[in-house]
Amino acid sequence: MKTKEYYEKFIATVPHFPIEGIMFKDITPTLEDAEAFQNVINDLAEVASNYEFDKVICAESRGFMFGSALAYKMHKGMVVARKPGKLPRPGASYSYELEYGKNTMVIPKDSVKPGEKFLVLDDLLATGGSATAMIKMVQQEGGIPVLALFYIGLPDLHGDEALKKAADIDVRTLVDFEGV
Amino acid sequence: MKTKEYYEKFIATVPHFPIEGIMFKDITPTLEDAEAFQNVINDLAEVASNYEFDKVICAESRGFMFGSALAYKMHKGMVVARKPGKLPRPGASYSYELEYGKNTMVIPKDSVKPGEKFLVLDDLLATGGSATAMIKMVQQEGGIPVLALFYIGLPDLHGDEALKKAADIDVRTLVDFEGV
Repeated sequence: MKTKEYYEKFIATVPHFPIEGIMFKDITPTLEDAEAFQNVINDLAEVASNYEFDKVICAESRGFMFGSALAYKMHKGMVVARKPGKLPRPGASYSYELEYGKNTMVIPKDSVKPGEKFLVLDDLLATGGSATAMIKMVQQEGGIPVLALFYIGLPDLHGDEALKKAADIDVRTLVDFEGV
Repeated sequence: MKTKEYYEKFIATVPHFPIEGIMFKDITPTLEDAEAFQNVINDLAEVASNYEFDKVICAESRGFMFGSALAYKMHKGMVVARKPGKLPRPGASYSYELEYGKNTMVIPKDSVKPGEKFLVLDDLLATGGSATAMIKMVQQEGGIPVLALFYIGLPDLHGDEALKKAADIDVRTLVDFEGV
């Protein structure tokens, strides 16, 4: 596993984006560096390899940037949690409060089969809204979320507690930033 | 390489989405099936392996669902072409006509270095608007697009001709649907 000092070189902090008061964690430098991208996917896979699961569910749209590679590496299927209106055959949906504003997510019809186990993935864990929505949609369809995994965590926002209220689930991050 | 008959099982055609007259190609079944997802990424990589390139550039947000896995598999960096307002450190941008409506794309600042070679990737080639935008943004920053690669092509819309006007570039698709 790479250190926080390593990943910090590939995460840009941009103050007041998209709104005043948010210290935005920009992960595009991680994507753009071939070696850093290999390392983050390999580290996510190392954590995930301790769990049995059938599919990765990931959130529009930064979650897709990591979820696709992780699903491919681990030979799993990928379910995309999207904003309303983007999926032509919508299935379960869930509305939640964002760190800034409100959001609704939708997954494709029949993308979760009863009893299937899910890794819930996103780039960043803040208050846990998006990941809670993914957990709830998986549960609505009879699936079982087993691990919520993130590249970045903001532990001061206690997203892990929100997720543990939604499901009996492990919550893991690769790198945490306090004081945000 | 898998056949058209194989991939057709994992591509749903949804009439009149998102607007009247569009026969939408829904690729979520490909993502959800672990083996189909392996196959499409492996087939994209087989085509891409005939080209030398440094980074994959892919379009919000279905392009991310394939571009991330392909960049990972081929040990390349990934540049995300996004809609305006999504990137905290915007770089080059380009506006174009969509199959339905108008769109503007933006890439992260400093994500293209002069002389870097690019694979331009998206899920579907229709009229070529998004891919042309990616080509133009790469060129604006001094990069060199060498291949435009798509899971699905709609050859009746002549997107390949649009791309070849924008750059001296090969255009490849894995599976084509005529009569749409």
